[in-house]
Amino acid sequence: MSDIKKIAILKGDYIGPEIMAAGLAVLEAATAGSTFKYELIDLPFGGDGIDRVGDPLPEKTIQVAKQSDAVLLSAIGGPKWDDATKRPEEGLLGMRSALGLFANIRPTHITAAQIARSPLKQSYVADTDFVIVRELTSGAYFGEPRVLAADFAKDTMYYSTSEITRIMQTGFQLAEKRRQHVTIVDKSNVLATSKLWRQIATEVAKAYPDIYVDYYYVDAMSMAIIAKPTAFDVIITPNLFGDILSDEAAQITGSIGQIPSMSVGQGGPNLYEPIHGSAPDIAGKGIANPMSMIHAVAMMLSESFGEVNLARQITDAVSAAINAQVMTPDMGGHDTTLTVTNYVIQSIQHVR
Amino acid sequence: MSDIKKIAILKGDYIGPEIMAAGLAVLEAATAGSTFKYELIDLPFGGDGIDRVGDPLPEKTIQVAKQSDAVLLSAIGGPKWDDATKRPEEGLLGMRSALGLFANIRPTHITAAQIARSPLKQSYVADTDFVIVRELTSGAYFGEPRVLAADFAKDTMYYSTSEITRIMQTGFQLAEKRRQHVTIVDKSNVLATSKLWRQIATEVAKAYPDIYVDYYYVDAMSMAIIAKPTAFDVIITPNLFGDILSDEAAQITGSIGQIPSMSVGQGGPNLYEPIHGSAPDIAGKGIANPMSMIHAVAMMLSESFGEVNLARQITDAVSAAINAQVMTPDMGGHDTTLTVTNYVIQSIQHVR
Ligand SMILES: CC(C)[C@H](C(=O)O)[C@@H](O)C(=O)O
Ligand SMILES: CC(C)[C@H](C(=O)O)[C@@H](O)C(=O)O
Repeated sequence: MSDIKKIAILKGDYIGPEIMAAGLAVLEAATAGSTFKYELIDLPFGGDGIDRVGDPLPEKTIQVAKQSDAVLLSAIGGPKWDDATKRPEEGLLGMRSALGLFANIRPTHITAAQIARSPLKQSYVADTDFVIVRELTSGAYFGEPRVLAADFAKDTMYYSTSEITRIMQTGFQLAEKRRQHVTIVDKSNVLATSKLWRQIATEVAKAYPDIYVDYYYVDAMSMAIIAKPTAFDVIITPNLFGDILSDEAAQITGSIGQIPSMSVGQGGPNLYEPIHGSAPDIAGKGIANPMSMIHAVAMMLSESFGEVNLARQITDAVSAAINAQVMTPDMGGHDTTLTVTNYVIQSIQHVR
Repeated sequence: MSDIKKIAILKGDYIGPEIMAAGLAVLEAATAGSTFKYELIDLPFGGDGIDRVGDPLPEKTIQVAKQSDAVLLSAIGGPKWDDATKRPEEGLLGMRSALGLFANIRPTHITAAQIARSPLKQSYVADTDFVIVRELTSGAYFGEPRVLAADFAKDTMYYSTSEITRIMQTGFQLAEKRRQHVTIVDKSNVLATSKLWRQIATEVAKAYPDIYVDYYYVDAMSMAIIAKPTAFDVIITPNLFGDILSDEAAQITGSIGQIPSMSVGQGGPNLYEPIHGSAPDIAGKGIANPMSMIHAVAMMLSESFGEVNLARQITDAVSAAINAQVMTPDMGGHDTTLTVTNYVIQSIQHVR
C-alpha cells in the first residue's frame, strides 16, 4: 500500500522557476533515504500558464491541485503579462478561492542572525516573534460589484459573519498553541466591514477566556509593527490590511528573500509559497535568493506531512548557510542561487 | 479696513484641549507685535460636540468653519463616545467632506535631532524627506453603499476620474516645487479603483515631463517606507492606503507627537491638525506633547497666511526645545506640556 504524497508544483514566473528548482533539490536531498515519498506534478499557472496554455488558471490545474496533498507555489506575475486579458494575479486569486484557502499564515520571527540586516534598531526588533493571520478569500479582493468604467471605478469590500468567524477561530486556535495573545486589526471607526469584524472578534473571544485580546486600528497597527514588534503574538486581519501589514512585517526582518507563507482551508491541500514577488530585474542572473522557497518546502514538510524532523534539518541547514555567510546579494552576500542551494544540501547530508 | 483673520478652533477630545491651549499660546506669543491679526472662533465638534450640543458635527460648526480663513483642529475621539449613534470620527469625515478638503498633505522630514529617536537605523533613515499626499474625501471612506447587516457587511471603494485627476494635480504641482519625483501608490493588480488610479496618474504625468514618476503597489510601499525612505519625494495615495502609509511614515521619525498635517480643498479654508490621536490614557496628566499642535500652528501661518517668518520662528523655537532636551515623556523627556510650551514661547521672545 503505497503512500506517495502528491505535490502540485506551480513553478512561477521570472525568478520563480529558479528558486523552485532550488526548493525541489533541497526537498529531494532532505527526504532521500527517509520514509517520506512524494511525486511532483508540474501544472501550468500564472504567467507560465498564459504562455503555455493561454490561461493563468486552467481548469485542469485547479482540478489536479485540489486532488494533491500540498501545493508548492513560486512567485508569479511580471511586466510581460501586464496587458494580458487575465493577468497572473487573477490566477492566484482564483486558486486561493478554488482551494478555499481562507487563511494566510505568515510568521515574523527575528533570529539573532537577522538582527544585523533589519532596518530597525536592535533594541526595537530583537526577540520579535509574531504570526499574521490574514483572511484570504473575501474582503476587497473578492467583493462584487467591481466596476472599471470610463469615468469612475468601484470595488466592494464584503465580509459575511461566517467568513469572519472561521478566520477568527483559526487565529485564536493558533494563539492557544503560542503565547495566548490575539490582536485584532480593523478600521472599525470608519468601515462597516470592520465594525462587523470587531463585533465577531469580541464574540469569538468569549470562547477563549485564557487568551488576551487587544484591538488596533489598521493605521495604528502599521505604526506598532515598527514601534513595538515584540508586543504581538497572533495578529488577525482582513484580506487587504493583511496584504499591507504582512509585507511591512516581513520588511522588519530585513530578509524578505527568506520568508515563506502558508495558506490553509478546510480539508483540502495547503499552499506554500515565498512571500516575495517574481523580481523581474534579477531573473535569469542566477542570484535569486532560494531561502524563501527552501523554507516553504520545510514548512510544507512539517505542517502538511508532520515531518517535523526533516523540516528542522532543512531550516538548520539554512541557518548554517547564513552563519557561514553563504548568501545571495539581497542579504548582503556574494553567492549564487546554486551555491547557496548546494551549501544547504551539503549541510543536510553532513548531519546524517 | 481691518484684515483680521478668522481661525475656527475645534479643540478636540482627551488631550486635544491640552495641546490646543499650547498651540494657541504659542500663536499669541509669535504674532504679538506683528501685523498679523486674528480672532479665534471656538466651535463644538467631535466628542466635545456630542457633549455640548449632542452632535459631533453641528450644522452651525460647518457654516462658521466654511467662512473662516483657516481651521485648527486638535485630536478627537475616544472610548467615551464608542457607543454614540454618531461617533466623533463621523464628524471628522463630515467636516472633510463639507469643506471639500480633498488633499491631506503630510511631510515626513527627519531632522538630525530625530535620528536618535527613530526606530530605524541611522543608515536607513538619515536624510529622509518626503511628503505623502493622501486623497481625503472619497475612496473607501465615502463610497456607497455601506451596509452593516446581521450576517454580512459591505463597504464601497469608489473613485471618479475627476477626483483622481485633481489629487494627482495637487501632488504633481507639489513635486514641481520639490525634487521633481512623484510616486504613485495603488493596488492595481487587484482593485478596479486602483487600475483607474494608475491610468489617470499615467495621463496626468504627461503634462509634467520633467517629473520622474514611479509606481508602487501598496504592499511594496509599506516595505519601501522602512527599507528605503530616502528614495521618495512626493507620494500620492488613495484615502485608505494613505491612512495606513502616512501613519507608518510618521512612525519612522520616532516622533509622532511632533507631526502636523494640512488638508486642502479648492478655495475654502485649509485645516491644520496633529497627526496623532487623542491619547485617552494620558489625558489630564499634563504631559501630552504640544509640539504637533505648535507645528500645526506654524504650518497654518506659513501656508494659509504667508507668514513664513513667523512660522520659522516657531519651528526654530521647537528645535531649540528639543536641542535643550525640553521634551515630554513620549520623546524621552521629563517635562510637562506647560514647560515645553513655555520654553518654546520664551525662545521666540528671546529671538526678538
Ligand atoms: C500578487 C498579489 C495579488 C498578492 C496579494 O495581494 O494578495 C500578493 O501581494 C500577496 O500578498 O500574496
Ligand atoms: C480618526 C480617523 C477617522 C482618521 C482617518 O482614518 O482618516 C485618522 O486616522 C486620520 O488619519 O486622520
